Amino acid sequence: MASTQVPATTPGRRGRPGYDQQAVLTIAVDVFNRHGYEATSMGVLAENLGISKSAIYHHVPSKGDLLRLALEHALGGLEAVLADPRATSGRADARLEFVLRGTIAVLTERLPFVTLLLRLRGNTEVERGALERRRSFDRQVAALVDAARSEGSLRSDIDPRTTTRLLFGTINSIVEWYKPGGQLTAGKLADDVITMVFDGLHHRP
Amino acid sequence: MASTQVPATTPGRRGRPGYDQQAVLTIAVDVFNRHGYEATSMGVLAENLGISKSAIYHHVPSKGDLLRLALEHALGGLEAVLADPRATSGRADARLEFVLRGTIAVLTERLPFVTLLLRLRGNTEVERGALERRRSFDRQVAALVDAARSEGSLRSDIDPRTTTRLLFGTINSIVEWYKPGGQLTAGKLADDVITMVFDGLHHRP
Repeated sequence: MASTQVPATTPGRRGRPGYDQQAVLTIAVDVFNRHGYEATSMGVLAENLGISKSAIYHHVPSKGDLLRLALEHALGGLEAVLADPRATSGRADARLEFVLRGTIAVLTERLPFVTLLLRLRGNTEVERGALERRRSFDRQVAALVDAARSEGSLRSDIDPRTTTRLLFGTINSIVEWYKPGGQLTAGKLADDVITMVFDGLHHRP
Repeated sequence: MASTQVPATTPGRRGRPGYDQQAVLTIAVDVFNRHGYEATSMGVLAENLGISKSAIYHHVPSKGDLLRLALEHALGGLEAVLADPRATSGRADARLEFVLRGTIAVLTERLPFVTLLLRLRGNTEVERGALERRRSFDRQVAALVDAARSEGSLRSDIDPRTTTRLLFGTINSIVEWYKPGGQLTAGKLADDVITMVFDGLHHRP
């Protein structure tokens, strides 16, 4: 799995003591998720950070840049899963399982960032670009589902498009309830999801 | 399954020719889902209906009443599933399957109404009341999951709370992509969901 470090726009630390760019980004994403990106002004962000509006500009040039950095953190993580050799070679079944586990890992490690991505409406160019990358990710997973079905690993009585929708529905809904640091670890959650979607909840004696 | 008729506040038809209360409600729910309930004023509703603000008041006393009627349509449908004898007697496993199928049926038949329910934030008394009824529904399904696990129908290596979360996550996410009237019927979708969550996607020779 790729690092959870937020990529910096400029090397090294920037801005005022007490906050680095990553801390500003983390708080901004939380505010975006609570109030919506559009409804959040730089003034509201400054209030939540407890700094002046002009102090935010020490860290990032604009609200759009905060969004771009945040979405890059979510999408970069997801795309790194697909680029992993375990996603590109071997049986489609094993590749699909690797990609689903990797997606759950990125989702749980970068929860607020992926939440922001999943709630995007696509009203700005930054949002539309991110949604296009998300669709590309989804298409590649759909192709894996097709391949796993063709090799006979997945049941053929469910349409592959429905299969893909249900898989994403199950996984993406994790952002609505999962609490990192709780009793349920990200690893056990991934095991549980993989068990349910591939083997089912019914007890087999 | 209960009727899909929206309950009227007063018997018979009310208001101006061209719209009855149900038509006003259907359009209002669509506008709430697109713009958010809070962001939607009676003026915006009137614009979308192509009638004057005062004409809306012929149909319903307030925006809150529209919300209450819409949520009643969603919650009433869900609660009717739990009240059905097939949900209250017999093996827990069969009762759980019946409730999940019934939930999917209500969700697909009353899609915009359930979408509105699932996106509620709980800022008004009407919303908080609806969220409390939704939580009560969720608790009753969680109790069914517990019962099905205790009778040995469900696997014991997944925590029942996780099981319930994943079941609701899978089913509720249907509102994000399902298009009524398309190739995938609501009945086949319910079959597919039940197959995946109970038996899994893996092909068993």
